[in-house]
Amino acid sequence: MATSPIGAGRPRTRGIVLNNIRAARTISRIELAAVSGVTPATITQVVRELMDHGLVVEVGRGVSTGGKPRTLLKLNPHAGYAVGVLLERNICVIVIVDLTGRQVARISFPGTALMPPERALPLVAARVNVLIDTAGVDRGRVLGVGLATYGPQDRQAGVLLTHQPTTAWFEYPVAPRLSEILSLPVLLDNDAAAAAIGEHWLGAVESRTYGCLYMASGIGGGVVVDGEVYRGSSSNGVEIGHITIDVNDGPCDCGNYGCLENYADPTAVVKQAMQEPSLGRRLGLDIADPDVMTMFGRIAAAADTGDPAAVALIERSARHLGTAAVTMASLFDLELIVLAGPSLAGAAASIYHAVIQEEVRQRTFARRAHRVRVVTSVSGSDAAAIGGAVLVLQSELAFLELDARA
Amino acid sequence: MATSPIGAGRPRTRGIVLNNIRAARTISRIELAAVSGVTPATITQVVRELMDHGLVVEVGRGVSTGGKPRTLLKLNPHAGYAVGVLLERNICVIVIVDLTGRQVARISFPGTALMPPERALPLVAARVNVLIDTAGVDRGRVLGVGLATYGPQDRQAGVLLTHQPTTAWFEYPVAPRLSEILSLPVLLDNDAAAAAIGEHWLGAVESRTYGCLYMASGIGGGVVVDGEVYRGSSSNGVEIGHITIDVNDGPCDCGNYGCLENYADPTAVVKQAMQEPSLGRRLGLDIADPDVMTMFGRIAAAADTGDPAAVALIERSARHLGTAAVTMASLFDLELIVLAGPSLAGAAASIYHAVIQEEVRQRTFARRAHRVRVVTSVSGSDAAAIGGAVLVLQSELAFLELDARA
Repeated sequence: MATSPIGAGRPRTRGIVLNNIRAARTISRIELAAVSGVTPATITQVVRELMDHGLVVEVGRGVSTGGKPRTLLKLNPHAGYAVGVLLERNICVIVIVDLTGRQVARISFPGTALMPPERALPLVAARVNVLIDTAGVDRGRVLGVGLATYGPQDRQAGVLLTHQPTTAWFEYPVAPRLSEILSLPVLLDNDAAAAAIGEHWLGAVESRTYGCLYMASGIGGGVVVDGEVYRGSSSNGVEIGHITIDVNDGPCDCGNYGCLENYADPTAVVKQAMQEPSLGRRLGLDIADPDVMTMFGRIAAAADTGDPAAVALIERSARHLGTAAVTMASLFDLELIVLAGPSLAGAAASIYHAVIQEEVRQRTFARRAHRVRVVTSVSGSDAAAIGGAVLVLQSELAFLELDARA
Repeated sequence: MATSPIGAGRPRTRGIVLNNIRAARTISRIELAAVSGVTPATITQVVRELMDHGLVVEVGRGVSTGGKPRTLLKLNPHAGYAVGVLLERNICVIVIVDLTGRQVARISFPGTALMPPERALPLVAARVNVLIDTAGVDRGRVLGVGLATYGPQDRQAGVLLTHQPTTAWFEYPVAPRLSEILSLPVLLDNDAAAAAIGEHWLGAVESRTYGCLYMASGIGGGVVVDGEVYRGSSSNGVEIGHITIDVNDGPCDCGNYGCLENYADPTAVVKQAMQEPSLGRRLGLDIADPDVMTMFGRIAAAADTGDPAAVALIERSARHLGTAAVTMASLFDLELIVLAGPSLAGAAASIYHAVIQEEVRQRTFARRAHRVRVVTSVSGSDAAAIGGAVLVLQSELAFLELDARA
């Protein structure tokens, strides 16, 4: 991939500058230097490169503070797009966002991950292509694809290190293969980490250090520290679904004991609901139905309308998630936890929010040092897909791709 | 405090350079620029400042790699000293270390924290002064004191935000008061965080990202990410002693439920031992004795000699700590966990090490991505005190103090 000798040296700086322009909406070069910590000389040069690529445009002048009024910069939203894909056992969500992170197209369909990857990935790629076409987005302006899915992963190699949902996915090169089919760069990342960073990019959180509790069919977590995803030693951190909340319980499929997921995830809630025959009949639940997300959705919707049996089940799940939220807040010292994903930000979002906020308020160790707020993600169910796309915009990849095409 | 106009601008850079010289033992300016990521011009200037302060000396020339042989630099260990104080309910440890982190003096005595702070701090200060005198250390070369104790804390203000061990300590200005008595700068930090960073500074760990599980009379944790203490939003992170390991258990004093400490700390082990009358009698345990550390020490020593009842108790505590170690490894994505503090690195260190290593090996979520090693701290029981002193050496404070005295 050809890169310009100037540009290739500082994709990281360009990402920082671009993100600061986005956050400010309009900003002068001098202000940009002040907020980004980059020298004015470098700002001048990086802004020129970004303008050459069409990513940034000048929009008139700001109010004078005594001297010459300063030229303001803003993003050109349509100069670049990113695709985000959430690939889950039970659901696949594809979004396209513009350079500001605003969603311009979206599609979702039942999970492909139960198929072997050789069948699933061409299907996902075909949907990506249809979405680009129907949205009227210039394919030459698509910078890449962020593929958000569960862990553990080898993020550098673009490979999943889990036998979930079927052994065919273990060590399969998902990101390189999808990249090959689409002829676009593909980044692999954790769904909850993607959801977490998406909130920041969309300007939805005031904190620069916060956590994300994510629930789709499984439970994950992400932490953002000073505006960057917490990575740890291999980008496999914050696996909150597989921490022990009951040392006296039996083994989990993951190898640990008494894991959170077995108490609080949609499968656990559906299993508990089946033990109440009247609720099961009323909602048409069927333990043999593999579509656990649909059945969980019915329980969540019933809880939202005040069905006491359904409320009790969701509250039980929420209290267990509250325990995990307290652990996350006490270990990462968080002031804010964002709830995201289809199961936490779906029909029962208000119950989950109220219960988890209360648990965290009462039980977090450092509550005398600061309070811990709990909010529901602005991206709701789509947080991981949107976050996947944001990770592309935030990455060096996007700039290298632009350099290569220039 | 007067500071030189050049020096004050980059205490951080000086800390980085000093740490790199320490790690390399001897190193040239060119190599120093390469490993520290600081420009050669800045290295030249910073090294000159460090030499002016007497902290760094030249030690002849390295092997030529073709050109002119390069002058090597090394630390002057006796150019500066730091004091570390571990202040605990049951024990106080004071150490003095030289500029390389090597311990030159140590004293320990039973806990003063059960006294009110107005009595305890003058007593600690008197012991610090005696230790400086008896060690023959030039007081003018003592850069400051690192006070390591439990949380939650307001680290900036130097204040404890806990009613432990007595309400008199809550919001008492421990660091400013000790600083006032000693006429030395005093840093407040978490004991487990101090223990964690101490390992790095002493060159005892290969990883730059790792965790520390710390047990004295309570249980704490610290995480180092890329060579720096993980701080979170208020330096009150990694409070591993107060995470829920049994959701079905009752409330802990801290406000949370089923906390690790109630299963695994010395008080819990002594309580469990009292339920076995023959063991209690054999070891002379007395539930009314406030000196829980001495009683725990007897159980640990009995376990170390193979007493089956004592071994069973320590193994039970170790399995619960193993559960917490798995949570810590799965959330922070760690490749290494260091066991430190008098209760983990004391008489029963080998049992704790073996059990926790095995739990982590079998149960950590990302074990297919990488293994997680468990080691016992090189500083053992004194890790927090030594770490407290290291935090002084690593801080900007030390340099500002030197500038002020220059």
